Formats: sequence, C-alpha cells, structure tokens
Amino acid sequence: MGTIFEDDSLGLHTDLYQINMAFTYWQDGIHENKAVFDLFFRKLPFGNGYGIFAGLERVIEYLQGFSFTESDIQFLRETLNYPEEFLAYLSELRFTGTVNCMEEGELVFGNVPILRVEASLAEAQLIETALLNIVNYQTLIATKAARIKEVVGDEVAMEYGSRRAQELDAAIWGTRAAFIGGFQATSNVRAGKKFGIPVAGTHAHALVQAYGDEYKAFHKYAESHTDCVFLVDTYNTLRSGVPNAIKVAKELGDKIRFKGIRLDSGDLAYLSKEARKMLDDAGFTETKIIASNDLDEYTIMNLKAQGAKIDIWGIGTKLITGYDQPALGAVYKLVSIERDGEMTDTIKISANPEKVSTPGLKKVYRIINKANDKSEGDYIALDYEDPQQEERLKMFHPVHTYISKFVTNFEAKELHVQVFSNGELTYQKPEVEKIQQKVKANLSLLWDEYRRALNPEEYPVDLSPACWENKMNHIAAIKEKVKQNEK
Amino acid sequence: MGTIFEDDSLGLHTDLYQINMAFTYWQDGIHENKAVFDLFFRKLPFGNGYGIFAGLERVIEYLQGFSFTESDIQFLRETLNYPEEFLAYLSELRFTGTVNCMEEGELVFGNVPILRVEASLAEAQLIETALLNIVNYQTLIATKAARIKEVVGDEVAMEYGSRRAQELDAAIWGTRAAFIGGFQATSNVRAGKKFGIPVAGTHAHALVQAYGDEYKAFHKYAESHTDCVFLVDTYNTLRSGVPNAIKVAKELGDKIRFKGIRLDSGDLAYLSKEARKMLDDAGFTETKIIASNDLDEYTIMNLKAQGAKIDIWGIGTKLITGYDQPALGAVYKLVSIERDGEMTDTIKISANPEKVSTPGLKKVYRIINKANDKSEGDYIALDYEDPQQEERLKMFHPVHTYISKFVTNFEAKELHVQVFSNGELTYQKPEVEKIQQKVKANLSLLWDEYRRALNPEEYPVDLSPACWENKMNHIAAIKEKVKQNEK
Repeated sequence: MGTIFEDDSLGLHTDLYQINMAFTYWQDGIHENKAVFDLFFRKLPFGNGYGIFAGLERVIEYLQGFSFTESDIQFLRETLNYPEEFLAYLSELRFTGTVNCMEEGELVFGNVPILRVEASLAEAQLIETALLNIVNYQTLIATKAARIKEVVGDEVAMEYGSRRAQELDAAIWGTRAAFIGGFQATSNVRAGKKFGIPVAGTHAHALVQAYGDEYKAFHKYAESHTDCVFLVDTYNTLRSGVPNAIKVAKELGDKIRFKGIRLDSGDLAYLSKEARKMLDDAGFTETKIIASNDLDEYTIMNLKAQGAKIDIWGIGTKLITGYDQPALGAVYKLVSIERDGEMTDTIKISANPEKVSTPGLKKVYRIINKANDKSEGDYIALDYEDPQQEERLKMFHPVHTYISKFVTNFEAKELHVQVFSNGELTYQKPEVEKIQQKVKANLSLLWDEYRRALNPEEYPVDLSPACWENKMNHIAAIKEKVKQNEK
Repeated sequence: MGTIFEDDSLGLHTDLYQINMAFTYWQDGIHENKAVFDLFFRKLPFGNGYGIFAGLERVIEYLQGFSFTESDIQFLRETLNYPEEFLAYLSELRFTGTVNCMEEGELVFGNVPILRVEASLAEAQLIETALLNIVNYQTLIATKAARIKEVVGDEVAMEYGSRRAQELDAAIWGTRAAFIGGFQATSNVRAGKKFGIPVAGTHAHALVQAYGDEYKAFHKYAESHTDCVFLVDTYNTLRSGVPNAIKVAKELGDKIRFKGIRLDSGDLAYLSKEARKMLDDAGFTETKIIASNDLDEYTIMNLKAQGAKIDIWGIGTKLITGYDQPALGAVYKLVSIERDGEMTDTIKISANPEKVSTPGLKKVYRIINKANDKSEGDYIALDYEDPQQEERLKMFHPVHTYISKFVTNFEAKELHVQVFSNGELTYQKPEVEKIQQKVKANLSLLWDEYRRALNPEEYPVDLSPACWENKMNHIAAIKEKVKQNEK
C-alpha cells in the first residue's frame, strides 16, 4: 500500500478522476485550453425558501495555496505510475485562473451559479472536489442557521455543536457559517480566535460532579467568575438546581452578575416557566434562561407556542450537521471550452430534466423592483447581455412556467464579484461581522412568503431568452448527434 | 471583536466552558486532582445492531500535540480576561494523563465505555470537546460503512463522498473510517497518501463535454490510460455511452484493459441489466459495471432484489455524512474524582433514566462463549474485579431485564488497551489495513441476528453486580441530598 508520508497538503485533496482527466488533457495537449465551470446547486435544502452562500473565505485560502508538494508528487509516482513529464507539469502547477463569485452572505437559489471558474482545463478540473467540499458544507450550515434564526427571532441564538460536528474542520467552519446565518456566538474558542466570532459558555455537569455538591460548585464558580450562568440540571432542576443558583446569587450579591441559568434536559417548556417564576419571585427578573438539548427550528417553534420562557437558545447537533439534510448537492459543470482557439459552449444531458446543465459564459442578476425594494427573482443571462438595458423583463414561475409576469421599474443587480484575476486575488475579504450584517440586509429584499419555514413560495429563477435558446439549441444538437451515432 | 490571529492551533479547539471550569478548579487549587472520565454513547446509530469504533489515531495525534500557543494565550488574555497566573499555567500545560481505550475497529455498543481518561481534572476537562468531536464522527462513519458493506457483501464498495463531506477533515477522516468499516477504496487521493488506502477513479462527465464527442473522449482517455473505466451517462447511457465504450474497447483491443463502465444516473436496475447484455454480447464478459448516485444500504438492497447487474458500488453522500443520522451522541462523563487525597466516585442524575451515568473506575469485557466462539454480551465491571475468575456470569437482556441467562464456559476478553501512560504514548498504532481485517474478525463473533440491517436483536450490555450496586448507592445518596437541601 505504498509509503506513508509524514507531511500533508491539500494538493491531493481531490478525486482521483480529476488527475486522470488532467493526464488525458495533458497528453492530448489541451490541458491549457481555457475552460469555464459553473458551481451551483439544484435544490434548496431543508425545504427552505432561500439559501445563504458561505465558503468563499476558505476557497480563497485553498486556491492561494493550491500546489503539489514533493511528497504529493512522490505519492503519484509510486502509487499511480504517471510519467515524469506529467509529474513535472503538476509540480509547477499553481492556480492561475479567474474566479467570479457571489460574496459570502448572498442569498442563493437553485440553479443560480454561485461561483464561476475560468482557467486552464486541467487547473479548473483539479480544484473541483475541494471547492464543492467547502461550499457544499458551509452553504448548508449558513442556510440552516438563517432558517433557525428566523424562528428564534429577536432572542439570542448560540452555536454549541463542536462535539457533534463531523470532525474538526466542520466544528470551526460550521460555526463561522452559523454566525454568517445570524447566530450571535459560539462555544468554540478556536473559532472565536480564528474568525473573531464572540465566544460564550458557562460550566458543565462535570463541575457539579467534581465538587459532589451543587451549592458548593456554584459557589466556587461564582468566586472565580463575575458573570455567572449556572447549569441547573445535574441532579434535579427545580428542587435543587434553581434553588442553589438563587441561594448563591443572593449570598454573593453585588460581587457577581447573575446572568442566567441553563436548562439542558427535561421538559424545557415546563421547566423554563417554573424556573422563570422562581427567579422572578427571588427578584432576579433580569436573569436569563438559556435552553439547549437537541434543539432545532421545529422544537423552538413548538416551545414558543407552549409559552416557554427561554431567552437564549443554545443549538448544537441539529445545526452543525444540518441534521435533517446533512448534504447540499452543489455540482460543478463545464459550460464552455476552448477548441481550436475558439470558445465553444458545452452541455450535460440527463434523463432527469433538472440535471441538464446550462451552457455558456453567463452572468447572474437579482431583479429588484424599485417601487418596493423587493426582489422579483434572479435572472441568468449570457455574458454579453445587459438586462439593465431592457425596458421590461419577462419573469416566469420556476415550475409552472405558464405563470409569468413583466417587470419594468427594476434594478438588475449583478451578483458576482471578481475574486481572482489570472491567479491574483483581486477581492478584499470582509470581516465576518460585516457578512452577517449583509445577510440581514439581503433577507429584507425577500417577501415574507419566501422566508417562512414551512412551505415557502418558490422564488423565480429565470434564464434570459438568449440563454434559454442557447440551451435548447445545444440539447437539440446532442439529440441529433446521438441519433447519428446509432446509424 | 479583538485581533484576528495569523496562526491556528488545536489548543483552543474546545468549548469555552471547559476553560471556565479549569479556571475555577485552578483558583480553588483542585485543578491537579486526579479525575476519571468515561467516553461512551448511549444509542447505536442507524438502528444498527453494533457500532465500529474509529478515531483513536487522530485522538493520539491531538493529545500528543495538545498545548496552547502564544497566540492562543494572547487571545484568552485579550478576549476573556483571565489572570496572568492562570494563563502562565495554561501555557505550560501538556497532556500528562493515562488513556485506556478500545482499539480502532473494535465492536462497540451503547453505554460501553470506549475510552477512559485518568488525568488531572483540568487536563481531562479541556480535552473533552476535541475527543468527542473526533470519536463521534469517525465512529459514526465506520459504523455506517460496515452496515453498508454487510449489504454489499462480496462485491466491491468504494467511497466517493469527498465533495459532499462536511468540510475537508470529514472527507479524509471519513474515508479512513469507511475503509475501517470494510470499504475497499476511496476516490480521495489525499486520503490515499495520508493513510495508505487504495485510491480509485476514472473520469467525469466533464471529459466527454470537453471533447464534445463521447467517442472521441473515450478514445483519448484510452490512449492515456491502460486500465479503462468509461462513464457512460453524459448524453444517453444505452444509445450512446455503452456503444461508444464498446467501440473504443474493440478498436484498442489489447492496448487497454476494459475494466468497466460506470452508471451515475437513471434507473440503475434497468440500465445495468441492459448494459450487461450489451457488454456480454460484445464479448466483454469480464468488464465490470460500477454504479453510483445517492446509494445507501437501502437502495443497494433494493437494486439487488431487482436483479441489478452491478459489480462495484460507489457510495458518497449517504456514507460520508451518515445521512440518515448524521451525528453520534457520544458523551464524556466524570466517574471518579480525587477529593482530599482519596478517589470518590461521582454520578450524574437525569430525569431520563438512560442518561444517568455509571460511577467508578471500570473495565470493559467481551464475554465470549468458548463453545461456539460467539459473544454473549459485554460486561462492565469495577476496576478491581476479574470476571474471568467467576464461575458463571449472569447476563441480562438490555431492556427486558427479566430475561437473563447464565454463561459458564466463557472467556472474558478485556476490550481496552493502554494508549497513554502519564502522558507517554505506550501504544503502537496499527496500519489501517490491519484494522479493517480486525473488523472482519470481530464481526464473526456476532450472531447474524445482531448483524442484519433491519430490526437486529439487542446485544446484551451488563454491569457486574458490584458495579450495579455502586450505581444504585450513588443514586440513593443524591436523592437523599436533594431532599436534605430542600429542608
């Protein structure tokens, strides 16, 4: 099974078939032909009405560092028998392409290109796997977070999922995505350091167990922390935890700020209401109740409907794994390729109509109605088109295309910014706090009907007539070709 | 939001509350008291009858590197205001504890301690989050992989999920876990290099699109690769893809090995049967059919029931995310603590009986019936006990405890090995191939009734009488304490 190498790099963080294809291109001398790939997903996750794009920061980091180390090359040599000339080519390879992409925090919908790569065919191919790996996960979690935050509303949402995240990267990039989606803090200290996200946390059951006495444990904690939140369910929430928290808070008086209690098991609706009464009766009307325990948008909505007295929601597993749909299905499709010095559009056909790709170098616009500042839908046009010059745009219902509308008084806002130009980073990465603010502004463009958690309306995503015609022509050409082949 | 630091370390890959607690312990002078924590999950995932433990290799890597960098300390200073003396303590901290753990590939069941940490209270607390983060994910995926492999049987299972994995770490550690669980290869080249797992892959739709002509694309691929697998569904599987593959294979004859075709969309049952006929009719009876497209144990079982002619199964999303249950709920509980120089057992009570922890320093045994080499169940005993000295063991049904059996002619195989002794690694990490072989041997200990995918029998996990009594005594003591508190 070959040597085990000591070092590790992201150069080989790709599927083998990408390298196999790069080799065919290289041998055929077309590896440096220009290629255009679109990255997009087809279907929104969780039945949500919109998605939130996240992942660009790490994509940038990855593309800037893209290269094969000496041991990567050695592995390819020993294990996969590529010829030396090809390995020499790979060892010199850096990302020298151009990337246009949505900014993180942008609203994203099915079939709308999030990111467009124009690069040499081999380069563009080799980076596919990592790009999808990064964007699929982070976009999934930013979307889940925004969805949960819609239900949490003006209360506070905290990310608590590190221990259930799918390995270490997911814990920190997932919490960053959650912050982008509207969460206010994380329990993960490393994410706090790495991204500047606020960190929050109190103590665990272990503290109470370590002292073997809840009152003593709370007292010791209060002696060492000015801001105190006590976890009250180690032994018995209402008979022991809350009374001990109140007792310690009264004894220590001004020496601490009794910020809250945390419930982590049991009937959160009942316990929170009872605990609220106990706190209020003791004069701690400002002390908050924090709840956690497998929460998601559904349990939160139900707890609120039951009148639960919860001020801060700690959300872990269900958020950080996108529990009810733990993968976004973004794909990366070749839409145009240089052949004999000319760019030619390309298509992938499928028995499933939704899997047919849209050929051509394209731009993506959000059509904003100037009369009410609401978005009428997204509009995908060929690169040379300028929808802003159109007097009116015809927008179709995404599924029932016999329903359509004309939009006249609109702004066509381009959704992509340039991130790399011929391998040079041309984009200034914003702070994560700014991205979070942007999400709020973006969401205000949507009618509430697209934002609700259950059965949202489908947001229109249209192709321009020229883009649609180009696609239909390519489908017809392929059908004809298949027919000819059979003869 | 504080400085953004350039470097990154795993020192802070923990929940803030761990550091908060460590601070309380430190201030109270009990941070170096000896503590014992058990890591275990309560419920098997996917309704499976057994779990496969994975994660130890990375746990070892993490514990060996455990420390806070200068910038970690600076972050804690700036953002969280801990006093300098505590920060000085943290900056010197290394893992100096003792770890006993199952070996990777061991069968694991609910409530059976997988890993036991004996360390200073502060150290043991600070490592909790990362340990759970690692073990939860890798054990989940190894279990899912073994579950899928049971259905795949003697055919080949390949891991194809990198693009849908939850960020980069999950892609590679997930595929390692899948290999442990019985998968034979991965598409991820980095995982191949890092772990010595066989890598596999062919080409994507993009190759066919790049040439704009399927025949030409296959031909170019065959000119550059001796072993050829053609992806046949870019345009039309049966009318174009398979005929073109056969045509190219015939033309190239002995110059290539026509290893297979790959189906990645459409009706896999129908297409595989038709494609098999076409291949056989053309004389390519040894050419394999590889199928992929959102496969899992259920679709595979159904496809087999329909007589699909599939030789190799490429499994991505549903495996690498543990799609139908993307988190394992392992926890880490304090079971014993040094107080005033003596070790005292501790317990956590809960309104949910299954959440009550089991106090004490314990050992874990698998009780193997010598008459048939099958396992009768797992047996958890206090550290000083030796079940091998017992003449007969009473084993209870895990839920319906009125059902019990006596086991006499048994071997009590201890399941933990020592991994660290006072911070020193005492364990020789096996190669991943050896771990995979071990899984096969381990599974042969189980009756088929525990191995089936649907409604398996529940495997017995018992506490020794002494361990059970100790737990009951602790519950009674806590109840009494809560009562006293209320007076």
